[in-house]
Amino acid sequence: MQVEAGTLLKTINYPSDLRNLKEEQLQEVCRELRQYIIDIVSVNGGHFAASLGVVELTVALHYVFNTPYDQILFDVGHQAYGHKILTGRRDTFHTNRIYGGISGFPKRSESEYDTFGVGHSSTSISAALGMAVASHYKGEKNRQHIAIIGDGAMTAGMAFEALNHAGVENSNLLVILNDNCMSIDPNVGALKEYLTDITTSQSYNQFKSDVWKILGPISKFGPNAREIVKKIEKSIKGSILKQSNFFEALKFRYFGPIDGHNVEHMAKVLEDLKHIPGPKLLHCLTVKGKGYALAEQDQTKWHAPGLFDKITGEIKKSTPTTPQPPKFQDVFGHTIVELAEKNPKIMGITPAMPSGCSLNIMMKAMPDRAFDVGIAEQHAVTFSAGLATQGLVPFCNIYSSFMQRAYDQVIHDVALQKLNVVFCLDRAGVAGADGPTHHGAYDLAFMRCIPNMIVSAPMNEEELRNLMFTAQQDNMGPFVIRYPRGNGVMPDWKRPMQAIEIGKGRKICDGEEIAILTIGAIGNQAVKACAELSAEGVNPAHYDLRFVKPLDEELLHEVFKKYKKIITVEDGCLMGGMGSAVLEFMTDNGYSAQIKRLGMPDKIVEHGEQTELYAECNYDWNAIIKTVKTMIEASSTKKMIAI
Amino acid sequence: MQVEAGTLLKTINYPSDLRNLKEEQLQEVCRELRQYIIDIVSVNGGHFAASLGVVELTVALHYVFNTPYDQILFDVGHQAYGHKILTGRRDTFHTNRIYGGISGFPKRSESEYDTFGVGHSSTSISAALGMAVASHYKGEKNRQHIAIIGDGAMTAGMAFEALNHAGVENSNLLVILNDNCMSIDPNVGALKEYLTDITTSQSYNQFKSDVWKILGPISKFGPNAREIVKKIEKSIKGSILKQSNFFEALKFRYFGPIDGHNVEHMAKVLEDLKHIPGPKLLHCLTVKGKGYALAEQDQTKWHAPGLFDKITGEIKKSTPTTPQPPKFQDVFGHTIVELAEKNPKIMGITPAMPSGCSLNIMMKAMPDRAFDVGIAEQHAVTFSAGLATQGLVPFCNIYSSFMQRAYDQVIHDVALQKLNVVFCLDRAGVAGADGPTHHGAYDLAFMRCIPNMIVSAPMNEEELRNLMFTAQQDNMGPFVIRYPRGNGVMPDWKRPMQAIEIGKGRKICDGEEIAILTIGAIGNQAVKACAELSAEGVNPAHYDLRFVKPLDEELLHEVFKKYKKIITVEDGCLMGGMGSAVLEFMTDNGYSAQIKRLGMPDKIVEHGEQTELYAECNYDWNAIIKTVKTMIEASSTKKMIAI
Repeated sequence: MQVEAGTLLKTINYPSDLRNLKEEQLQEVCRELRQYIIDIVSVNGGHFAASLGVVELTVALHYVFNTPYDQILFDVGHQAYGHKILTGRRDTFHTNRIYGGISGFPKRSESEYDTFGVGHSSTSISAALGMAVASHYKGEKNRQHIAIIGDGAMTAGMAFEALNHAGVENSNLLVILNDNCMSIDPNVGALKEYLTDITTSQSYNQFKSDVWKILGPISKFGPNAREIVKKIEKSIKGSILKQSNFFEALKFRYFGPIDGHNVEHMAKVLEDLKHIPGPKLLHCLTVKGKGYALAEQDQTKWHAPGLFDKITGEIKKSTPTTPQPPKFQDVFGHTIVELAEKNPKIMGITPAMPSGCSLNIMMKAMPDRAFDVGIAEQHAVTFSAGLATQGLVPFCNIYSSFMQRAYDQVIHDVALQKLNVVFCLDRAGVAGADGPTHHGAYDLAFMRCIPNMIVSAPMNEEELRNLMFTAQQDNMGPFVIRYPRGNGVMPDWKRPMQAIEIGKGRKICDGEEIAILTIGAIGNQAVKACAELSAEGVNPAHYDLRFVKPLDEELLHEVFKKYKKIITVEDGCLMGGMGSAVLEFMTDNGYSAQIKRLGMPDKIVEHGEQTELYAECNYDWNAIIKTVKTMIEASSTKKMIAI
Repeated sequence: MQVEAGTLLKTINYPSDLRNLKEEQLQEVCRELRQYIIDIVSVNGGHFAASLGVVELTVALHYVFNTPYDQILFDVGHQAYGHKILTGRRDTFHTNRIYGGISGFPKRSESEYDTFGVGHSSTSISAALGMAVASHYKGEKNRQHIAIIGDGAMTAGMAFEALNHAGVENSNLLVILNDNCMSIDPNVGALKEYLTDITTSQSYNQFKSDVWKILGPISKFGPNAREIVKKIEKSIKGSILKQSNFFEALKFRYFGPIDGHNVEHMAKVLEDLKHIPGPKLLHCLTVKGKGYALAEQDQTKWHAPGLFDKITGEIKKSTPTTPQPPKFQDVFGHTIVELAEKNPKIMGITPAMPSGCSLNIMMKAMPDRAFDVGIAEQHAVTFSAGLATQGLVPFCNIYSSFMQRAYDQVIHDVALQKLNVVFCLDRAGVAGADGPTHHGAYDLAFMRCIPNMIVSAPMNEEELRNLMFTAQQDNMGPFVIRYPRGNGVMPDWKRPMQAIEIGKGRKICDGEEIAILTIGAIGNQAVKACAELSAEGVNPAHYDLRFVKPLDEELLHEVFKKYKKIITVEDGCLMGGMGSAVLEFMTDNGYSAQIKRLGMPDKIVEHGEQTELYAECNYDWNAIIKTVKTMIEASSTKKMIAI
């Protein structure tokens, strides 16, 4: 469905068109831009509240700066819809996040206005500093580099590392702190409280009252008391906000806080900042969801609400007539509470994804045992390790692709010490519409090479529960459970739990000639393939490995003794993944077999529905069927030739 | 050689013995402890200056706190020698860092006083917070948790993430900032400048002068002027240092700065801090190398000087009569300068390892093109990515095990965007005396699974130079060059450079029956093995793959067509590594062969000389010879049986 843009917005194909407008027209541009985002996202889905919050900022930036020569970087990037619409993608915006359409995040290959690909948070200052230093080196004196980063993203370590470096580099870098007190969930931590302090001038008021307390009664100052008081207060106010500032401590010049929804004022401030050299930070206050009342009221819900009726605000959900399987996320959320009620050692940790991973269920039920540590994966892992040294059993839930942020901590702080930390890797395998930055593609490869690590993946909800039950037992050591985004396959998922023997796979069905080995939920594609094949009289065996590490050697001996044709299927990268582990077993044990490995190929897999991507990458049920048939045909042909 | 401890130190087997002494004896304990460290490290080697700098702090901590119930964590841990000596390891300290001896870092399996294993920097606050939160949860109200972290380690993102979380947790956490202005090299960045500011009270002086400038002439205050001035200054001083404080902004209570070499005063301060609940930070000023004059003067040189004459300060170096092969590190350092002189696009980046990786050569020669960004691997990678977007060619040199810290940035910011960043992974393979935290064991596995990535390893100095030459060409995309710690094999290493075709391996020697495939410098062990075997009439072929990705398919087709027995050798983990890549090729191309993979096994490899560890892990020349013979014997036996 094509949506009509407003009168002014229609005329803006590129920022150069925007810059032809008068300042007093900017407010109208903002109105139309906001409306256009609402119109399209309501029928198309995608991130919502974040882009609404930065409409004025986006318009002001492209109005004031000479983009794309001047370089704007949006941190995380899910707030860049306005930016996309203003930079040549108004008419393709309805394909946002759809298979084959434009990306939901800035992407260098999509537009020269997208200066840096994003998706994960907190990279913008580092990248912008790199650009600024390059410009400085090349003598491009007036080129501007602007990183727009949220207060949530500012809590991640790498943002701090970048500030620490930028503060001592003399290059044109403007960091805009988009302070809306939110990540996807409300932002947490000391820095957030500090920013609130600045905004409400609590530091200033506290300091002022300290000073006067020590100075004693004003009357003591004699005839000039009033003048002295005024001057002292002015001095304190002017200096304290500057001197006491966190960012000034890091050698940034701090400006603000200013209202991020006054587009004309913001344009003036940005114009002024252009002429101030060196690292500087502008603190903007914005409201996530601005301009759509319901989104302003419940910002977490409206972060990415799916399709909705823009008038009534009703979020569209299909209402199935039969019970549906739950999301793996909710199975995790309910099961950890169920386990924690019985096992007082269990703690829950999430780096800023309580609603995404459903740890919010535990945070509500057991607030003293569940922690949202902010966007801080590294800390989340080592904090969990610290808990584990004291005999507790932390479940550290991190999206698979975000776990890449804490890889060293997994090795160095958990695995080397063989601590009992359970890593629940959510969004493992292809992530869907979020695309390549969010695919949990590499976890089986990068986790299985670590000594002491148990690496598992449940095929369904019951298996997830049993693996969680297994992992919370004493002295298990580091334990990975990886599962995909979205729904499982078992409407009646809430079954009694039982322990699984470590490294034990299971036979799904016996068969002839060919064995299919799967790991995790993708195994359900093999189930479907086997059912279809069976109707045609072809009966491959199917085994669910459950563990990539340790491998079920007994099961594999059985397989390699019985079958000379083997298909491995995984929702993850082929290089170094589960299939590769099976090859290692085969070779180390002197077997040989014809093996076809299915999984994510050695290329960047773009965005789309998960099922579309399984098909594209040739590991959906259809591809499995084809592979089985091809392998069988090859051997019949050989036999025929032999005859 | 056993060294005699001083009279008091002899009596201290555990901190409980220390706590029986009088406060006025502590200074003597410090003197003896310092002397003992000097005596042993001078003849045994190891880290030096860092431990000397914290002698007083270490003694005060164990004197005041009830260790091991109270939990002390040393960040990084190379400064924990004093701690080890005071906690049951005085008499084994002479085995420090030696194969089979005690570890150079705190290690949980070694002592209950080592509350958390360390090696990599900046983990201590996260881990201590985990312990503190666990204690809080368990109702251990008076249990203390103390993280000792250097100002260099404080620049790493995860330390900031931990502060941000700790500031809002109400648990007994004391962070001691050991401020000595040094990492291994002088510390860099804005935070360091800020800490110097606090120490010299520049903020305070600046603020005071601002205030008086605005207040105007003091005479205006009338008769009470003197009193008012005094009160205002006192108020400003009392409050500004508190209010303007970086750590107070993060909701820590800040104390200091105090002299970290006055043991009695420090003991008193620590005693006081015990009784203050919540997160607090004590800022201690220390001198790295304290008490050994030469070390105080050149702290980088004396970080880990090797063996030395403790009286003359002469560092012992064997002076060979023939030219020796250089360190790979120095080949890197000189070659990047040589290349950068011709190619203006080349930039150099190191996260706090300029002397370790020899980028200091470029930093000296081309200060505007070489950056030490502090202990900040994540930022180093994404900063490099930012530079690359502007057409520059950054060489980002990071130790292999530290690269684990920036894994997401490699994937998300460099590989997905196919940017021209050259990753030089120093200390790849077993690292030697630093042990398991520092072994670069996993890089081949975790790098080769990333799309767009070129992964290479030079067998010798000339190859390193050629790979660097190759990588700096335009449009290469992400390019890994991994090489080990220490010396190569070519005294005449400085040869003209030439480009290598991407993904091209090379044949070292032709042979019969068996082919040995190696990657990187470990290939020289195969060269030696082949030479020995040749004398016995056994002639395996030897190929140097050079690239783990892309694989040299032409070479591998040749190998698999010609040989049915193959040995792969790599200085890295077997799971998912080079051998595994070869198995993938074999299976995907329908070959079968008997393959024996040599490399690091799936267990934690402890510390020792590199050659000791190659032998332990069965991939030194000797192990290669045995493997060749075993494979040949197996086939002769088969043949005999067949006959």
